[in-house]
Amino acid sequence: MDNLELIREISLPSPTKIVMLVIDGLGGLPHPGTGRTELETARIPNLDSLAAGGICGLADPIAPGITPGSAPGHLALFGYDPVAGNIGRGVLEAIGIGLELEPGDVAARGNFCTVDNKGLVTDRRAGRIATEKCAELCKLLDGITIDGVKIRVYPLREHRFVVIFRGKNLRTELTESDPQKTGVAPNEIKAKHALAKGTANIVNGFISQAKEILSSRRPANMILLRGFAKKPQFPTMQEIYKLKPVAIAVYPMYRGLARLVGMAIAEAGTTLADEFDALKKNYAKYDFFFLHMKGTDSAGEDKDFDRKVKLLEQLDGALPGLLGLNPDVLVITGDHSTPAVLGGHSWHPVPVLISAKYCRPDGVKKFSEKAFLAGGLGHIQTTQIMPLAMANALKLAKFGA
Amino acid sequence: MDNLELIREISLPSPTKIVMLVIDGLGGLPHPGTGRTELETARIPNLDSLAAGGICGLADPIAPGITPGSAPGHLALFGYDPVAGNIGRGVLEAIGIGLELEPGDVAARGNFCTVDNKGLVTDRRAGRIATEKCAELCKLLDGITIDGVKIRVYPLREHRFVVIFRGKNLRTELTESDPQKTGVAPNEIKAKHALAKGTANIVNGFISQAKEILSSRRPANMILLRGFAKKPQFPTMQEIYKLKPVAIAVYPMYRGLARLVGMAIAEAGTTLADEFDALKKNYAKYDFFFLHMKGTDSAGEDKDFDRKVKLLEQLDGALPGLLGLNPDVLVITGDHSTPAVLGGHSWHPVPVLISAKYCRPDGVKKFSEKAFLAGGLGHIQTTQIMPLAMANALKLAKFGA
Repeated sequence: MDNLELIREISLPSPTKIVMLVIDGLGGLPHPGTGRTELETARIPNLDSLAAGGICGLADPIAPGITPGSAPGHLALFGYDPVAGNIGRGVLEAIGIGLELEPGDVAARGNFCTVDNKGLVTDRRAGRIATEKCAELCKLLDGITIDGVKIRVYPLREHRFVVIFRGKNLRTELTESDPQKTGVAPNEIKAKHALAKGTANIVNGFISQAKEILSSRRPANMILLRGFAKKPQFPTMQEIYKLKPVAIAVYPMYRGLARLVGMAIAEAGTTLADEFDALKKNYAKYDFFFLHMKGTDSAGEDKDFDRKVKLLEQLDGALPGLLGLNPDVLVITGDHSTPAVLGGHSWHPVPVLISAKYCRPDGVKKFSEKAFLAGGLGHIQTTQIMPLAMANALKLAKFGA
Repeated sequence: MDNLELIREISLPSPTKIVMLVIDGLGGLPHPGTGRTELETARIPNLDSLAAGGICGLADPIAPGITPGSAPGHLALFGYDPVAGNIGRGVLEAIGIGLELEPGDVAARGNFCTVDNKGLVTDRRAGRIATEKCAELCKLLDGITIDGVKIRVYPLREHRFVVIFRGKNLRTELTESDPQKTGVAPNEIKAKHALAKGTANIVNGFISQAKEILSSRRPANMILLRGFAKKPQFPTMQEIYKLKPVAIAVYPMYRGLARLVGMAIAEAGTTLADEFDALKKNYAKYDFFFLHMKGTDSAGEDKDFDRKVKLLEQLDGALPGLLGLNPDVLVITGDHSTPAVLGGHSWHPVPVLISAKYCRPDGVKKFSEKAFLAGGLGHIQTTQIMPLAMANALKLAKFGA
């Protein structure tokens, strides 16, 4: 019996409420000038006070040393095995722009690229064409039907797009056409499984038509496809936890991930203030709130230490609004670390705070990576956060007598 | 290879002795008035001194957030996977009153209940009839034989009883008759497996006879059955650890659990002093001693913070008697936490101390939940305690060359 099966067996519906505030990219590294991390630099009295009253620790989203993408990072936060439940690239891109996939759909990530007159790739990103140009080219390719399979093409940023094949008996066991280097021709799509041959033919047919349609265009005169995937089927959070969960997230990717595990999606607006308003508006209707703050991760990715600090301070200033709701359990953590000095997601464990009536206090006084090393939660796995939140909300029955 | 298989392969018989003192419900939460837990409130100089000389940590009996019953809590202490080895309700109830089950027996938990003249349940507990009344009713149902299956009925507390079916080819794949709510009739027992049909007929026959026998009684005029189970077959501690283990426990439940893993059962008397005497008397004959102290859990369940503190102080005062035996390894821990402020078992990790000659010392000076956060054992799983005890007793060979 895996952990989710165990939780499913002992979880109970109850009126208590859990708020999980996910500060994307929470957790950093010391600034070379000061020796202090983003959290240690920021003035965050409300977070410090929560740390002093709650129980703290550090969590590995996947395993020590493994840097998670946003999808596995969030699956782990929701309690799902992030490796077994890994979501294909095409599906993630589709989710990222708010597309709703049907169970049989195959989604793939595409690049517009440049090929020379021999058909060899000279630029895998077609000079990073403007997003508007990408949208214009997608329109040319959108709506083709091959052997009854309807093919939709949606622009992403710059040269990127997502393509969705909708029809019967589509399979994902396909090689990729993107050769991942220049000077060679795009690869033909091949079936890795006998049952995928039909799908390979359809995808190759689509690529041929795209080549024809784009042939007079410059610099984007060809496409590359990779990451063929179908929407995964997860047991929902309702089934596992008996919760009524809702997601409050500005970015479509996070709403899409939440939808995959059964969450309702609230109108979240565009700012953190909007998100806090949405929390208040929906507070009576649900008992689990996934509240996602994106800016900290973006600042980390941009290597903007100061902006990440400022965003943490802004969040801290806004916290009293959330605390006024008096949730039974408040979890504050991240999906992964994004240290500004690294400029990307990292493998460093992520600070976790649980604030609730029956937390056993530890001696932690500050909300920071170093202070949390001495926390009462110790060093845990991110998938253990949901069981701890459920326990603190008194939503789990005893196991065994 | 799971952990037990590994240990079985490398364990060695030796003359060293391990004492495992289980303080039931050890581990608490701060008193709202003082901010100190039961352990932090109690004057326990001997435990503090052991903590200063030994190695300390905190253990999760099952997993973070999961509150264990007594049975899984103890299985984990003995090194057995508490989830895979989960013991059925009927068997636990039988063990709890000291019944010895044979391998083919099926045990079930029963409630006396009240039904109206349409046969609908109006009270699942028959107004919590007195234990003496329960015993009187059990006598009426005890000893029935159906198709060669002998049915024994034993009273528990108030409206509760245990029923044991003894005969050939009995199975446990049965639905439960307890509908878990009022206003509906008890469910018919159904076989969940073709081979269990005969058993289902016998159990339904017993329920019919019970209904007939109880029909003129008020308020207990019917029974509800659930938790059909057979005694599990565990590899013994002798097989796994090459130990000669003995249990010293006042309450039948803990003796029963110990018997399931192959322990001998010592005459334990009725008090902690009796138990310490039993330890001395049996010290030459065995090399593993499971010594169970119940009162701390009961005090926690009763929300009696002060009594739990006092019992910890009494134990501390009695410890020199145990220390005089100079065991090679002394483990002091609990099967789960029972914070008095919660009044029940909880998910909070349990303090663990190992005192032995070759412990690598940590900086811990106090026996408390918070002090143990900095302990050398760190945050472990309860199933890891036995391997650590065995290692410290020099009873494990090197793994691999």
